[in-house]
Amino acid sequence: MSPLNQFDPEGHLRHLITLEGLSPDPILALLDRAQHHVRPIHQAPSTGKSLAGLTVANIFTEPSTRTRASFELAARRLGADVLNLEIMLSSRAKGETVLDTIHTLQAMSTDVFVIRDAEPGVCRLVADHVAAHVSVLSAGEAHLSHPTQGLLDALTIRQKKGSFHQLTLAIVGDIRHSRVARSAYQIFSTLGVGELRIVAPDALMPEAHEMPIARRFDSIEAGIAQADVVMMLRIQKERMVQAAIPEADDYFNRWGLTAKRLALAKKDAIVMHPGPMNREVEIASDVADGPQSVIRQQVTNGVAVRMALLETVMHHRARRQTPT
Amino acid sequence: MSPLNQFDPEGHLRHLITLEGLSPDPILALLDRAQHHVRPIHQAPSTGKSLAGLTVANIFTEPSTRTRASFELAARRLGADVLNLEIMLSSRAKGETVLDTIHTLQAMSTDVFVIRDAEPGVCRLVADHVAAHVSVLSAGEAHLSHPTQGLLDALTIRQKKGSFHQLTLAIVGDIRHSRVARSAYQIFSTLGVGELRIVAPDALMPEAHEMPIARRFDSIEAGIAQADVVMMLRIQKERMVQAAIPEADDYFNRWGLTAKRLALAKKDAIVMHPGPMNREVEIASDVADGPQSVIRQQVTNGVAVRMALLETVMHHRARRQTPT
Amino acid sequence: MSPLNQFDPEGHLRHLITLEGLSPDPILALLDRAQHHVRPIHQAPSTGKSLAGLTVANIFTEPSTRTRASFELAARRLGADVLNLEIMLSSRAKGETVLDTIHTLQAMSTDVFVIRDAEPGVCRLVADHVAAHVSVLSAGEAHLSHPTQGLLDALTIRQKKGSFHQLTLAIVGDIRHSRVARSAYQIFSTLGVGELRIVAPDALMPEAHEMPIARRFDSIEAGIAQADVVMMLRIQKERMVQAAIPEADDYFNRWGLTAKRLALAKKDAIVMHPGPMNREVEIASDVADGPQSVIRQQVTNGVAVRMALLETVMHHRARRQTPT
Repeated sequence: MSPLNQFDPEGHLRHLITLEGLSPDPILALLDRAQHHVRPIHQAPSTGKSLAGLTVANIFTEPSTRTRASFELAARRLGADVLNLEIMLSSRAKGETVLDTIHTLQAMSTDVFVIRDAEPGVCRLVADHVAAHVSVLSAGEAHLSHPTQGLLDALTIRQKKGSFHQLTLAIVGDIRHSRVARSAYQIFSTLGVGELRIVAPDALMPEAHEMPIARRFDSIEAGIAQADVVMMLRIQKERMVQAAIPEADDYFNRWGLTAKRLALAKKDAIVMHPGPMNREVEIASDVADGPQSVIRQQVTNGVAVRMALLETVMHHRARRQTPT
Repeated sequence: MSPLNQFDPEGHLRHLITLEGLSPDPILALLDRAQHHVRPIHQAPSTGKSLAGLTVANIFTEPSTRTRASFELAARRLGADVLNLEIMLSSRAKGETVLDTIHTLQAMSTDVFVIRDAEPGVCRLVADHVAAHVSVLSAGEAHLSHPTQGLLDALTIRQKKGSFHQLTLAIVGDIRHSRVARSAYQIFSTLGVGELRIVAPDALMPEAHEMPIARRFDSIEAGIAQADVVMMLRIQKERMVQAAIPEADDYFNRWGLTAKRLALAKKDAIVMHPGPMNREVEIASDVADGPQSVIRQQVTNGVAVRMALLETVMHHRARRQTPT
Repeated sequence: MSPLNQFDPEGHLRHLITLEGLSPDPILALLDRAQHHVRPIHQAPSTGKSLAGLTVANIFTEPSTRTRASFELAARRLGADVLNLEIMLSSRAKGETVLDTIHTLQAMSTDVFVIRDAEPGVCRLVADHVAAHVSVLSAGEAHLSHPTQGLLDALTIRQKKGSFHQLTLAIVGDIRHSRVARSAYQIFSTLGVGELRIVAPDALMPEAHEMPIARRFDSIEAGIAQADVVMMLRIQKERMVQAAIPEADDYFNRWGLTAKRLALAKKDAIVMHPGPMNREVEIASDVADGPQSVIRQQVTNGVAVRMALLETVMHHRARRQTPT
């Protein structure tokens, strides 16, 4: 399989399936464009017409309130028509292949496919087969990739910290099974942070060869000491079992981010979480809702990032249409 | 728990979770505004742009064709973006709290939450925690409250009868478990009707202390005699069992609104039902479809009431944005 | 039951529930209008405002990705508000009748009902009861009728072949249980083709009295010999069993459209399939994706046909509104 090329022949970003291999320039361009769409929530949201006449198909084969809603609002606030298709499952149930479903929707003039799927490789498969004017955006792929989450995390940190180069960033929890951690690793190793730490029980660490530039910590206290950014991950029951800490209380006692532990980080450290949170499991409620938390700001940035991304890949489509 | 305040500090209606405690003025203002949105169905519906750029999240954790569709059309016909989220259930399934879901949607610039939930207190909980610019509208809360139903019932009666003060209004059926009955009781005791009757088998009557100004009847014949308005309620199988009338036929024989019984009411009495109807259980088909039925008019008024309500609470939001 | 009249008193098309009994004129008018909406998929789709302010309710009680999405995009690209109601099922679950659901939606100013239902007669039942300004469009009715599929098939053939009169058209597969086959039979017998063939194992042939002008073939080789158009149908597992060919491989060996078999048809024969396809069951993948396949073009034409249909039945509504 040839390496995935997310750019078109003219060098414009066309798909976003992974942050791996992206250079800083297109990432920073997306962050800059996203920043223009950020509004305080008590103001009217940013809206526009740049996607008017275009169709975005949101295909979610795993349930997701936040990411689906975020892409849907991003697309609609730019004037696109949005098709929500949990319904893909029904075609699969009837035995239609993924690609036939995609080709069918493409034949109805779908311009962007937003895809969340638990199976690795589906986004790539689709990107390899759609027509040249069509874009594929991952909304989360198995444990591998969640690129818009990486972008919104970077945007949030830049808003609070100005730049990345001096920062100590600690990602804490189930790194091994987390697409959020992988996309964070990719974007911050590309943008360059002072120190990138992964902090987890042994059983939840990635393979030794993965994340080579990260420093590994097997205690949360050591891992977040003097950190500028503490990024907590969602832990699932079966992963706790795997880490031999089957009780949520025990997990919280050993790995939960409490106010006391957070005090080990820098005074102005920020706390992040991709959501949905397990309160009192991986994070204490008073920390989640405390003054250092930027969790809601992450959500707001998520819509802005997705607007910027849709405009970037479709600006391209718009341009191509001109000569026709 | 402090009493629920549905108004903002400047005295404008901000939430609508219950009709209890509302004075006649804001109710009549809503009815007047709603009347402007009423159109005969063979004409184009009332539309506008007053909600353009705003986002309404429709969160239904109980299924409901009519109320969900009614709120959705009301919002869209005023130009709002509407998110339909049965999907909230999936976040709950993953263990996210209601408030985290709400805060997430609020962080995406949701302006109005329309909530139907079987659990008492959810609307209030949400209203207590959203930002100052955000409104919460109940679309039906457990057995307690269904305020837009109360409003549409009042609007329908006003259209047919002109005013409320001389009317004898009989609510018939499962009063005890009915949010429709409670909202009707609240709005008509506030607006002032001639006589408010509740008509039910003993087991389906509310507690003795509830609905103090209502006259109680344990026979439908006596209860609807000389009534101007006969408001039938939906009966559920398990409630019939509770009333010791487990067979639908028997229930119909003893409590169903037939043409013969309706003849006991005033000649120009109107027949109402919140839907969905159990034909030949609580209401005879020829009555449901007969000349005295205003059941479809209730549905039409439902959209108008919800448009008026959205405009009222968001007019407010619009005003607040100006200085920013 | 009186025969279904799909026209209003002034002779304008109002409903489309079946193609049976339609004369060539309204069919050709729809094809002509649809042709105006066809765009190559790399161009922006045709859009307009002719349905602005109108409401289309998409009621699908059987799952269907493609037809639901196609109607939804057609309506939205013309400016309509679209309600997607799988939710009808919930009302049914609560015991509301189909007609009460329809009357409720009509009372909310629904102008067009698009209905797919597995039960024969539902579209007709609805059409017999809606108000004079409301239209009913079938999106597939049991095994009986799928009129927009017939229209899109005809449009596709006209685009590739220019006219119908000289063509030999072979429909292959489970004719007996296929609404696609019935609608194809109806439209092509009305428009007049050179030869209309139905090609199927005995058990999957329609009753002897059905499709009187079709020539019957019990071998695919004979059936598609010298054909201009080969229209394959989806085969379901239980139908193979009925045809005593329970294994998909055996079915493919005896009835699948392979490149070798396709070579028996005319050199420039086109291959059609309504989707979703069972690859390597009724059709070989290399044929489905080959140069003679027009399967994706059928999908593109499907949106155009539905736009034309909505405009046609609602042009009518628009006109009626003028005097009000």
